Amino acid sequence: MSKIVGIIGGVGPYAGLDFHKKILDCTPAKSDQEHLEIYHISASAKIEDRSKFLQGKSLANPAEGLIYAAEKLVAIGAEILVIPCNTAHSDPILSPFLEFIAKKNALFLNLLEETCRYIRSKGLQKVGLLATLGTYQSGVYQFYFRQIGCGELICPTESQKQIVSDAIYNPEKGIKSGAQTGWASSQLDLVVQSLQNQGAQAVIMGCTEIPLALGNSDFLLDPGQILAKRVVQAAL
Amino acid sequence: MSKIVGIIGGVGPYAGLDFHKKILDCTPAKSDQEHLEIYHISASAKIEDRSKFLQGKSLANPAEGLIYAAEKLVAIGAEILVIPCNTAHSDPILSPFLEFIAKKNALFLNLLEETCRYIRSKGLQKVGLLATLGTYQSGVYQFYFRQIGCGELICPTESQKQIVSDAIYNPEKGIKSGAQTGWASSQLDLVVQSLQNQGAQAVIMGCTEIPLALGNSDFLLDPGQILAKRVVQAAL
Repeated sequence: MSKIVGIIGGVGPYAGLDFHKKILDCTPAKSDQEHLEIYHISASAKIEDRSKFLQGKSLANPAEGLIYAAEKLVAIGAEILVIPCNTAHSDPILSPFLEFIAKKNALFLNLLEETCRYIRSKGLQKVGLLATLGTYQSGVYQFYFRQIGCGELICPTESQKQIVSDAIYNPEKGIKSGAQTGWASSQLDLVVQSLQNQGAQAVIMGCTEIPLALGNSDFLLDPGQILAKRVVQAAL
Repeated sequence: MSKIVGIIGGVGPYAGLDFHKKILDCTPAKSDQEHLEIYHISASAKIEDRSKFLQGKSLANPAEGLIYAAEKLVAIGAEILVIPCNTAHSDPILSPFLEFIAKKNALFLNLLEETCRYIRSKGLQKVGLLATLGTYQSGVYQFYFRQIGCGELICPTESQKQIVSDAIYNPEKGIKSGAQTGWASSQLDLVVQSLQNQGAQAVIMGCTEIPLALGNSDFLLDPGQILAKRVVQAAL
């Protein structure tokens, strides 16, 4: 029997769907009945913006909303849990969540751990990072790079970080507004180019919204894609 | 407070995601926190193929799996339920489901009723139907056309119905296999063209997999799109 997958979605809602689709794409199924059982909760209104919290612009810990969703998923039988949001894996948010999960009979697969293991397995020595301001500020990728034993992580300049953030959050043209191509892609491309010029052998799209605008390739690493493969492997 | 939406997905899994995305697209939201709370269960392995059952090729009623998912959705608080699958709305499947729902405190929005109301509101007199063999055989669209008071429904010839079915189900090239463009689209286009030649003013994409291959337009009516708008309206 395959294990039941629980997606703590809504972070953001489109990124959750994109991740869910990646699980379907990775599943060796030719009919509906061969697919995994997947429960997906998108309770975005109950989850504070992760970046805002990490930057001290809000006191509400997004962990509360993540636990709200996880509680429901576990209650109806989810056995493998995932959070398709990079920023949510920074310590101030993930720690209370892990404390909650430790008491439950469910396996949590960590998006950043899986991504860093993948990077190490590919022998990449110098890797760039596109992320939210909260993710940069929290140093969470640096933490997992050290813990897993990856090479060097290159971050953009402060003004480039702002460009990435605006491509994600701009209320009119940003990816979270539903406008997933055009302007946001071209803004992100500028920063990718700069990281490549600095010698990055690959760039992590370290916010699950970014692949919605950039797609993925051997150069543009998609943590959601890496995690989706791992989820299917663990569930089957 | 917005109402919580429950999607009984997995029928098929990609169609469920496509419908979920249509809800996000219809929601007037510029940030994660403005989106609706959506619970989506994709338990496709537990839901017999709807068309197979209606054609008498299986005795397992897909209603059982639909109720399995609905039970979980209601247990965790879903208030509006939808099934993004046309074939599941035929009487032998929907009746036991409605009996179950009647005992629960949840509103069920009916994909076919909403589609037929839309067709009537547009004053369309002659409309073509693309659907699974099960949907054609059950006469479910004819039933709702009469009940809601729509005009004439045109169905393809028997061999054309087989073409539509193969575009959906072919294990190598069909939409349910994950191959959503190319061959399947061109097969469906042939049948759409024939319905248009017979005077159809619009064609219902009466299987939620079909819009994955054809997109939608004023001519190609997408029941999922119509229902998604209605769901957002009812939830807000």
